[in-house]
Amino acid sequence: MNAEILAVGTELLLGNIVNTNAQYIAKRLADIGIDVYFQSVVGDNSGRLYKAFELALQRADIVITTGGLGPTQDDLTKEIAAEISGKKLLLDDKALRMIEEYFSRMGRTMTENNKKQAYIPEASKVFYNYRGTAPGCAIEMGGKIIILLPGPPREMEEMFERSVIPYLSQFQEGVLASKILRVCGVGESKVEELLADLLDSQTNPTIALYAKFGEVSIRITAKAETEEKAKDLICPVENEIRKILGNHIYGEGDQNLEDVFGELLIKHKKSIAVAESCTGGLLAGRLINYPGISAVFKEGVVAYSNEAKIRRLGVSEATLSQYGAVSKETALEMAKGICIKAGTSIGISTTGIAGPGGGSIEKPVGLVYAGLCIDGELYSVKFNFTGKRQEIRERTVISVLDWARKILIEKLNSGKF
Amino acid sequence: MNAEILAVGTELLLGNIVNTNAQYIAKRLADIGIDVYFQSVVGDNSGRLYKAFELALQRADIVITTGGLGPTQDDLTKEIAAEISGKKLLLDDKALRMIEEYFSRMGRTMTENNKKQAYIPEASKVFYNYRGTAPGCAIEMGGKIIILLPGPPREMEEMFERSVIPYLSQFQEGVLASKILRVCGVGESKVEELLADLLDSQTNPTIALYAKFGEVSIRITAKAETEEKAKDLICPVENEIRKILGNHIYGEGDQNLEDVFGELLIKHKKSIAVAESCTGGLLAGRLINYPGISAVFKEGVVAYSNEAKIRRLGVSEATLSQYGAVSKETALEMAKGICIKAGTSIGISTTGIAGPGGGSIEKPVGLVYAGLCIDGELYSVKFNFTGKRQEIRERTVISVLDWARKILIEKLNSGKF
Repeated sequence: MNAEILAVGTELLLGNIVNTNAQYIAKRLADIGIDVYFQSVVGDNSGRLYKAFELALQRADIVITTGGLGPTQDDLTKEIAAEISGKKLLLDDKALRMIEEYFSRMGRTMTENNKKQAYIPEASKVFYNYRGTAPGCAIEMGGKIIILLPGPPREMEEMFERSVIPYLSQFQEGVLASKILRVCGVGESKVEELLADLLDSQTNPTIALYAKFGEVSIRITAKAETEEKAKDLICPVENEIRKILGNHIYGEGDQNLEDVFGELLIKHKKSIAVAESCTGGLLAGRLINYPGISAVFKEGVVAYSNEAKIRRLGVSEATLSQYGAVSKETALEMAKGICIKAGTSIGISTTGIAGPGGGSIEKPVGLVYAGLCIDGELYSVKFNFTGKRQEIRERTVISVLDWARKILIEKLNSGKF
Repeated sequence: MNAEILAVGTELLLGNIVNTNAQYIAKRLADIGIDVYFQSVVGDNSGRLYKAFELALQRADIVITTGGLGPTQDDLTKEIAAEISGKKLLLDDKALRMIEEYFSRMGRTMTENNKKQAYIPEASKVFYNYRGTAPGCAIEMGGKIIILLPGPPREMEEMFERSVIPYLSQFQEGVLASKILRVCGVGESKVEELLADLLDSQTNPTIALYAKFGEVSIRITAKAETEEKAKDLICPVENEIRKILGNHIYGEGDQNLEDVFGELLIKHKKSIAVAESCTGGLLAGRLINYPGISAVFKEGVVAYSNEAKIRRLGVSEATLSQYGAVSKETALEMAKGICIKAGTSIGISTTGIAGPGGGSIEKPVGLVYAGLCIDGELYSVKFNFTGKRQEIRERTVISVLDWARKILIEKLNSGKF
């Protein structure tokens, strides 16, 4: 079975609002194994809306609309759906009562045009609205289904979970399961190259790659009779991918890099402090996204000036004048310095040229050094990033966090830390 | 002239990402007077993509696609567009050079499949990509235009502003000029209420509001024979809006809050340091977005633990035990402490409960105090935010920065600072 999502509303065509409903519905349909091949947006115009309905009914088994169920004259979705399916609109008593109750709860007077919302195409399955006034419905017609849903996301989502999912489940065979692996340190095209054989031969499970800023997600999706069996199909493919990508896979599902890093620190009771120059607080900011990090995060210092690097971190003036603030040597002294000052077992530092000014031929914009001090042992890394100032700084945060994660894991695995 | 927006990508059909590109493009097209009647989304499937192209070319004068220009095999948009327009794909030397430079700047090896991105349909207008690898282009064919744009929003938006708007302008009569005013400290619906009379009576110029996280942009757009004349139309409307919103308008055009704040500090030679608890580096991170801030930004301290607040900032143990870490008193001592330790004329502090844990009835999640020390004088403010951990922290940064900006301006205007 496949579905098309048809959003109705001139405000979408004008770009006044973003179509989050389409994303929500698409995701939930994917969860229950209904394919979506097209999504469309059309304005509050009866001619174009009629055509969009016709087209969607040609292309899909199920057409799910959002919006256009309101009380005003330019709310047309239900009227057009009734016309195209040849159904009369009939007053639904329960829907009317619920709209009346809604207005009385809100202490507002119900206007005459609100009654329009209680009319439903005959013989359709009504989806009552527990968060607003417009009910939705499902119209079955010659093997096709039209589902009408209200536009406001909180009304639509409640109705979708309460009524639409159970309604659609009756038509589904088999169950879908999926698993997401999260990857850092290799780009999308490189991941694709590494997984080429797996990607070429995929059928069930399927494997899809998604690039996000600085990372890649891999979604493995399988279909089977039961969730258990679908998961059994995923398992060997996941193992194969893990074997190829190794510790570039940092997490699963909704996990972020900072979640994984924070969990590692907390699990192994390792305290951390950071000393930032070019990232100027963003690295600490990212680490502190992880709730509970306070158990291990001691402090952060934004030592942007040389003076602060000397006074707050104990970097030596000689190092700064001989190698410069943006150097491996300074990065290492910063990492060591913050460890000592904060009394932590791990210290991370960043220093680089985020631009747009400050670059030279020897040290161009985008050059970044990071330092890591783990249990007194020192590591450094050099990056050459591109992009604007903010992008360079954000890429630094992700890359340094991933680099430190990989070293931390090695150290922990070695058993000496 | 009218346009159809066609987004290409299975990740949209699966609901993995939301189609913000369609909103962005729709809004910008509305600004320059191009109507959009349909938006569509189709997956990385050549048959369905071909059909979607055919349909869009029937319905619209201009078809603008996003996505599917990547290096992998399932990136098909350019290939299908070339097929449908009967154009060959030819290697564009400049595009190839830019891709090679991109990889060399990133210190990564360019894989063979990246070359595919430098092939462009013959005789089309190339839109080079200054933020990524895939160039876009415009293909003119029998009175219709196909515009291909990359999928990542930051690449697409830069290309749209730099190349697509000027390209489309040649088909438009008259000249458009627009001005953006940036607002912080009042929500979108409040701005709409305050500007209701202006918004109701708008024709030329038009006024459009755009809500972004924590702020609102007001775009005034006028059409006239010349740019000069269009600007003359904008001027009185801008003045009217400025009279109504006063210092809630913090900047213009591309300016960010940190740009405006940084410029103020540099212009008046005022040094600054920040002490952060709940924002944990994000406030420093935001300030340091402004290039050149190093002239005035001395240091930042992420004093997440009580111990760090005492040792690094000189907050008294008595204050922490009597009022708690999240209190007006602690915020003030943190602001004063960082000023003294760093020897700056301005110090800003944040302390709050970002959640999800740590809240109580008296001090719920979302409670945030900020402190400001300017030239020895102390100010504080209390916020009650809602939302998730990261959202609360980011709202804090914006709100505190805007609050400090307003006080700083008052102080500077008073002539005593």
